[in-house]
Formats: sequence, C-alpha cells, structure tokens
Amino acid sequence: MKTYTAHITVTLRRAILDVQGKTVEHALHSLHMPQLTNIRIGKYVEMSVQAPDAETAMELADEACSKLLANPVMEDYAIRIEEHEGAAA
Amino acid sequence: MKTYTAHITVTLRRAILDVQGKTVEHALHSLHMPQLTNIRIGKYVEMSVQAPDAETAMELADEACSKLLANPVMEDYAIRIEEHEGAAA
Repeated sequence: MKTYTAHITVTLRRAILDVQGKTVEHALHSLHMPQLTNIRIGKYVEMSVQAPDAETAMELADEACSKLLANPVMEDYAIRIEEHEGAAA
Repeated sequence: MKTYTAHITVTLRRAILDVQGKTVEHALHSLHMPQLTNIRIGKYVEMSVQAPDAETAMELADEACSKLLANPVMEDYAIRIEEHEGAAA
C-alpha cells in the first residue's frame, strides 16, 4: 500500500451562472483590478489515499467525488493524483 | 496584452483544525471509503487575467488573493498561471 495525495477541484458547470464569482468580480473591480474577469469559484479538496497503485487511488477519489463531494447535475470535478512525498508508512 | 488563466487554491493553514474536512472524512468512512484520510477543504478560484506577460499576471492574481480572496492569518494560497488557449482577443 502506498500513500497518494489527491487534489480535487469541483467547479460549477460553465452553463450555470456563478453568482459568487460575479460578486467577487465586482469586488475586485472596486479594488481597481479590472484586468481580472470571468471569475468562477469552486471547492478544493485535498486528501490522502491509501492504495496499491495510482490507478486505484484515482478510482477511489473519483468515487468520493461522485458519491459525496460533487453534485453531478450542476458541477464538474477534476482530480490530480500525486505520490506522497517521503513517509513510507 | 495577453489573456492568462489563473488557477488559485486557498486552503486553511496546516495548524488550523479543518472541521469541514473532518466532517467529510467521517461521511466518506460511513460510505465505506476508509482509505481516504487527512481531508482538507478549501476554495478554488479560476479567473481570466489581462496582462502583458505571465509575471504581471501572477502579480495581479497575488494581489487579488492578498487583498480579497484569502485571509492571510488563517489561510495559505497557491496560484498557477496558464496562458489562455486559442482566443487572441
């Protein structure tokens, strides 16, 4: 068993209006940063995954996303798996 | 002026208890996924940045984080700048 780190981002689908992003965009423009646009806000989840290989780690993280972390109707998610540095637990 | 995409993750500092992450961890274990641990939940922000070069884009995104998106006392942030695909606006 190895330890992997899964980095997951969950974002609203493009077709769905991101009101939180729009609000942040207005706030940034008020702070004199008009160069920043198209702001979309999502969730970021980081976790350790115990798995024999990277593929299994990816499957586990995917299952966590589809079952709990993301709403498949409104949200997309992306997963990046990374082998854990150091610690041979 | 080029268009860059900034991918920003804002996470609670390691020393701070992440209650939301703990709750998700319990939920995942209830869903029979005990392989997933050390869950930490943060924010993910994606934005378009108009800037002459990647360095300036990074500075702008950094300013947005320190002024608005992250709480420097409790949170860390990471920024990845990517040149925008296609569209020569």
